[in-house]
Amino acid sequence: MKVVLHHRHPRGVDDALEQVPGVRLIRTTSDDEVQENLQHSEVLVTFRWNERFRSPTLRWIQSISAGVDQFPIDELRESGVVLTSARGVHGPQVAEHAFALLLALTRGIGVSMRDTATATWQPRTGEELAGKTMGVLGLGTIGEEIARRASAWGMKVIGTKRDPGSYSGVARAVYPPGETIEVFRSADCVVSVLPDTPETRRVVGAAEFEALGDGWFVNVGRGSAVDEQALIAALEKGSLRGAGLDVFEEEPLPESSPLWRHPRVVMTPHTAGLSPEYGPRLARIFEANLAALDGDGMWVNRIV
Amino acid sequence: MKVVLHHRHPRGVDDALEQVPGVRLIRTTSDDEVQENLQHSEVLVTFRWNERFRSPTLRWIQSISAGVDQFPIDELRESGVVLTSARGVHGPQVAEHAFALLLALTRGIGVSMRDTATATWQPRTGEELAGKTMGVLGLGTIGEEIARRASAWGMKVIGTKRDPGSYSGVARAVYPPGETIEVFRSADCVVSVLPDTPETRRVVGAAEFEALGDGWFVNVGRGSAVDEQALIAALEKGSLRGAGLDVFEEEPLPESSPLWRHPRVVMTPHTAGLSPEYGPRLARIFEANLAALDGDGMWVNRIV
Repeated sequence: MKVVLHHRHPRGVDDALEQVPGVRLIRTTSDDEVQENLQHSEVLVTFRWNERFRSPTLRWIQSISAGVDQFPIDELRESGVVLTSARGVHGPQVAEHAFALLLALTRGIGVSMRDTATATWQPRTGEELAGKTMGVLGLGTIGEEIARRASAWGMKVIGTKRDPGSYSGVARAVYPPGETIEVFRSADCVVSVLPDTPETRRVVGAAEFEALGDGWFVNVGRGSAVDEQALIAALEKGSLRGAGLDVFEEEPLPESSPLWRHPRVVMTPHTAGLSPEYGPRLARIFEANLAALDGDGMWVNRIV
Repeated sequence: MKVVLHHRHPRGVDDALEQVPGVRLIRTTSDDEVQENLQHSEVLVTFRWNERFRSPTLRWIQSISAGVDQFPIDELRESGVVLTSARGVHGPQVAEHAFALLLALTRGIGVSMRDTATATWQPRTGEELAGKTMGVLGLGTIGEEIARRASAWGMKVIGTKRDPGSYSGVARAVYPPGETIEVFRSADCVVSVLPDTPETRRVVGAAEFEALGDGWFVNVGRGSAVDEQALIAALEKGSLRGAGLDVFEEEPLPESSPLWRHPRVVMTPHTAGLSPEYGPRLARIFEANLAALDGDGMWVNRIV
């Protein structure tokens, strides 16, 4: 089976897909090449959507991302094209990354690493997460991976979810997006895994940071969910104890941003989702779905 | 009850002890003052032992440390002085600190923080702990806190213990100290919580790092357990993927040490044991033991 792979994908996805039995992988270097190859192919693996990817032969799109808001879902449904997501592929690495950032704040790793530049030995008393309350913004698959790890380490977990009624997990209280500030009021640290959607733009702003007080904020979702000026103000003038940031309003983060230099900021360059296990996990989903396309077994993560 | 507190103690211990009902805390500024006050006191709280602390009125020593190798145990037993340890006081913060260092290596926090000095945006693919094997050198109270957290996050745990036969915990294989190298052979990452004793000096050397290969090494025990030159060689010439160090052979770490600048080293200045909860936890042990001294209830962590 010919499988067209979009040119933009995490490292290792191509090699992992190529090892799936029965796959003849077509690598591309541009949207033009994707379009061209799709004229004779039934399967597309892609992170992005371009309306030029419409094709009479296309039967199935395997998304490389967990979210699928970028795809024309109604149109795909009408034309009978199956869409499957990569839900579950990002969970472990993003959850561990969120804790890497959070612990770097609570245990002084960030500030100690800044101190290494001048060989400065300056002990500081760190904090303990055990017994504290974590708020998770976006208790989906990734958010729940974070919540489970927090719970296993003796933290109380609360959070938000688009539809709190559908929640089943370890969090003790789940609020709808409209009550996000309640999470900031009750939590000692808040972790956002919110995606970039019209509904999530700047849901974390000055009022939320004021409600959090001297807590910690970690963002492993998307930078657009946070009012970055309000975050900087909370660090500089407010009581925010620290921010662990993997994502930003503008990426790469402009050289002029004070976030680069703030002693209470720990940061990574949008790497939370990266992992050598990404490709193999996506390939396992893909392999099951390739069989389903042939009428053999159930679809995994089918959206339409 | 008069309680003499040694002048060297973690921050907050004095305030926490002072709040224990019935305690009249005597703070000191030197060993001379400790000695002087002990002539009329029955209780000493101390991290260190000095033979001048012998006193005819002394009935009980509450150690501030988990290990008690520094005390003259046989002599105390003969003279009927009770010795209790602070076992359990360090566990949570040291365990979280060990993971802070380990995750800073696996998720690229250390190297990204070094990049902030030049506002360099350089994404790197991190690794996942889930599914990997952790080796814990020293599966005592603190080691088990680390092992439990690793196990809860989907890691397999192995380790060493002075008396493997007495072990009951989450580790799947426990070796005696003489077979420490087996842990380095099987683990992806090794965490040492070994104390400074004659038996633990330089148990981690060139052969152990060679056995570990391209794994990670974390030290939250004591620097004396590691041959630091072998560690540096494993980083510079060997395959060691990274070292997370809270303790060193010489502290403060000399400015000339290459560990300050090595891109695969993450470090903190001997702060793993520090926590605002240290004093309150020690005070709870102390309060129970103060009652036991009065014949009311059981001793906690009694050594002799």
